[in-house]
Amino acid sequence: MLQQLRRLVWAANRELPRQGLVTYTWGNVSAIDRDRGLVVIKPSGVAYEELTPENLVVVALADGRVVEGDLRPSSDTATHLELYRAFPAAGGIVHTHSTHATAWAQAGRDLPCYGTTHADNFYGAVPCARPLTAREVETDYEKNTGLVIAGTFQARGLDPVATPGVLCAFHGPFTWGRDAAQAVENAVVLEEVARMALLTRQIDPGAQPAPDYLVEKHYQRKHGPHASYGQG
Amino acid sequence: MLQQLRRLVWAANRELPRQGLVTYTWGNVSAIDRDRGLVVIKPSGVAYEELTPENLVVVALADGRVVEGDLRPSSDTATHLELYRAFPAAGGIVHTHSTHATAWAQAGRDLPCYGTTHADNFYGAVPCARPLTAREVETDYEKNTGLVIAGTFQARGLDPVATPGVLCAFHGPFTWGRDAAQAVENAVVLEEVARMALLTRQIDPGAQPAPDYLVEKHYQRKHGPHASYGQG
Amino acid sequence: MLQQLRRLVWAANRELPRQGLVTYTWGNVSAIDRDRGLVVIKPSGVAYEELTPENLVVVALADGRVVEGDLRPSSDTATHLELYRAFPAAGGIVHTHSTHATAWAQAGRDLPCYGTTHADNFYGAVPCARPLTAREVETDYEKNTGLVIAGTFQARGLDPVATPGVLCAFHGPFTWGRDAAQAVENAVVLEEVARMALLTRQIDPGAQPAPDYLVEKHYQRKHGPHASYGQG
Amino acid sequence: MLQQLRRLVWAANRELPRQGLVTYTWGNVSAIDRDRGLVVIKPSGVAYEELTPENLVVVALADGRVVEGDLRPSSDTATHLELYRAFPAAGGIVHTHSTHATAWAQAGRDLPCYGTTHADNFYGAVPCARPLTAREVETDYEKNTGLVIAGTFQARGLDPVATPGVLCAFHGPFTWGRDAAQAVENAVVLEEVARMALLTRQIDPGAQPAPDYLVEKHYQRKHGPHASYGQG
Repeated sequence: MLQQLRRLVWAANRELPRQGLVTYTWGNVSAIDRDRGLVVIKPSGVAYEELTPENLVVVALADGRVVEGDLRPSSDTATHLELYRAFPAAGGIVHTHSTHATAWAQAGRDLPCYGTTHADNFYGAVPCARPLTAREVETDYEKNTGLVIAGTFQARGLDPVATPGVLCAFHGPFTWGRDAAQAVENAVVLEEVARMALLTRQIDPGAQPAPDYLVEKHYQRKHGPHASYGQG
Repeated sequence: MLQQLRRLVWAANRELPRQGLVTYTWGNVSAIDRDRGLVVIKPSGVAYEELTPENLVVVALADGRVVEGDLRPSSDTATHLELYRAFPAAGGIVHTHSTHATAWAQAGRDLPCYGTTHADNFYGAVPCARPLTAREVETDYEKNTGLVIAGTFQARGLDPVATPGVLCAFHGPFTWGRDAAQAVENAVVLEEVARMALLTRQIDPGAQPAPDYLVEKHYQRKHGPHASYGQG
Repeated sequence: MLQQLRRLVWAANRELPRQGLVTYTWGNVSAIDRDRGLVVIKPSGVAYEELTPENLVVVALADGRVVEGDLRPSSDTATHLELYRAFPAAGGIVHTHSTHATAWAQAGRDLPCYGTTHADNFYGAVPCARPLTAREVETDYEKNTGLVIAGTFQARGLDPVATPGVLCAFHGPFTWGRDAAQAVENAVVLEEVARMALLTRQIDPGAQPAPDYLVEKHYQRKHGPHASYGQG
Repeated sequence: MLQQLRRLVWAANRELPRQGLVTYTWGNVSAIDRDRGLVVIKPSGVAYEELTPENLVVVALADGRVVEGDLRPSSDTATHLELYRAFPAAGGIVHTHSTHATAWAQAGRDLPCYGTTHADNFYGAVPCARPLTAREVETDYEKNTGLVIAGTFQARGLDPVATPGVLCAFHGPFTWGRDAAQAVENAVVLEEVARMALLTRQIDPGAQPAPDYLVEKHYQRKHGPHASYGQG
């Protein structure tokens, strides 16, 4: 079942170590088949090099039940499911502990949009979702992580298509995209712009975000109806 | 047409990922045949490993028209053309979003010349060109990027041969050289000295630029009429 | 003798350069056979690529005497032995000079627990043991290093199973685990969270540690009686 | 002539890029045959991968005259010769622009000895030699670089065997050792401890150097008459 989706999710998970986003196996990718209401996700406790399209786990969007697979789904599965429910355009989701994005998450700060590198993939600052309360951590921790992310986007009026990522305070980043591959691309870009932003502030602690018209231009150039932007 | 130039531009583009200057395909190299008024440039939307000398695009210096090639030229083509017009000695041009050079660009700061590593390739500070205005961004953005760079060199009385690079505020670096290979070398050096400069200021926030006579000596040793400098 | 343990210690030592934890041969791994009271440890003066299971050295826990092996045991052997005596649950021990963990040790600071990446392996801050006195350095330096570490854990009431690592002031980190492989994993995680913590403080010098309930949750999720956490 | 020395110098030069100490060909290694008064050094303008034992250049210690070789000797040759004259125990010399050591040189600061990693190879701070004057730069620049280094050691009463390296203000590091291989080892260690020292100060801007008795112990453990230290 879902052979092609399995293959894409497998390839996307394998990309994480190749892009330097993960130590050991601190990351996972999933993708959704919206028609069937099924999500393919990395199993817990399996190294990337041992992943196959076949040993991925299929869970139901509705209730998280394992539909196919002998292995336990990623411990972050409930977060993924909550994000698929809140963000209907998300086709793939990535979670990592990539170094610089995690540093911003640990500092509890929104990642400012300091330039065009950031603006090409993220329309403005990448928000940092608030820390979970003790109660939210103690019961349904992973599900609540997803709810707090969704609540952050709603409260701030953010479009998850224009801002395809978030930092979770004291934790790390999640990114998403139209499919698993684009979600991974956004995870790579988020890590790189998090690094650049940190260096920018080291040069000038009072550095200002890029002006709105520049952010708008770059975002539209790549993603707008008249997108003209390819690569390089 | 332009077989040899195509081969050099192809090799120079391939060098960008090898030197760690690009994430995904965030960079492009071009070179010019001044006699024919033609520029060979990376196509937009093609990964470096899929580049061939044949799928590069040839555009006219005069009006940017595609003269040869089935693919769209890099989205930064209009900037390259403006620089070739302003800097007659430039034979090759490189644009990247290399990490540390971009951080300086995002901080909106000139890159000071803190030592001989910098002075061997850049005679004094590498300037940061001013941010574009809303109007400059909204119409002919890429062309205006080139005009603002050229205007920066003119207003400051800088010789583009002695200072073969620039930082564009909120954006990233451009470098150039007598040919595509030297433009790439300057991009590599700019990234490395941008990194060293940042570290220098972390050790001493009040670090002073190298004295003029030392900059002069190193620049002349490598580039002057009595150049005695090889490698190492 | 101890063929299987030799093989595990050999593999663990070889992992150090692979994980980027060592320059030249600045690190060593040992493991213990508690029943026989014997410790297998890296020989001094042998590069990792020249290690074999056979050229490792076997020493007695009781008195450090070499029981098997033609080579001299690591110069840090007496520290390893002291830690095995003080921490009965330790099955393997690692010493490195990994860059960021060493920087924290050189700064003489405990490594704060800024997030879940840290909390998954270390329950709260990783302590920095006090500098040795002149007398402690001059006589039985390596043994005293172990005693000061053990004394730090005792004085602060720390459980070495929950906090499987330490920073030694002006020196570098030691980590341990149920076996050599887990000790290496803890060395890798310690280096990565030391790096993240430094970056976190660069973004916000007043960054706060993760709340206790979050540390508790993550530690128990991975290590508690109801551990549900695999990888990713 | 000097076949074995050529081979050692060749291998030592090849090690520079392998250890990540050089961009392009920004570094060179030499070694001396004291009996014959001859120095083997990297030719200028030759990439490391094109070096062979045969294309190295042999120059006379007495006057710098090329004794063997068709290529020009490194542009830094006069500095090497001055150091061989001033430091009779030096058998090999290395110059690089390695990133973190160069940053300290550009900041014009001595590199403090913050811990045992540093103390194992360098007895106390690595000095930063003063900037050259305009006159010293304009005439015999490379020779004067060597004289200023030697003068720094003399004025401070430093033993070049115990402190086998220096930072040249606005320039970069030189290291030396009993032979070319040990000079390269010292260059690698200098770069790593320069990086650690920078990170140490980021964690604690007021970090203190390691106490003298600890520096003494580590230096003697590795280099003293009762040296017991191998590797790891």
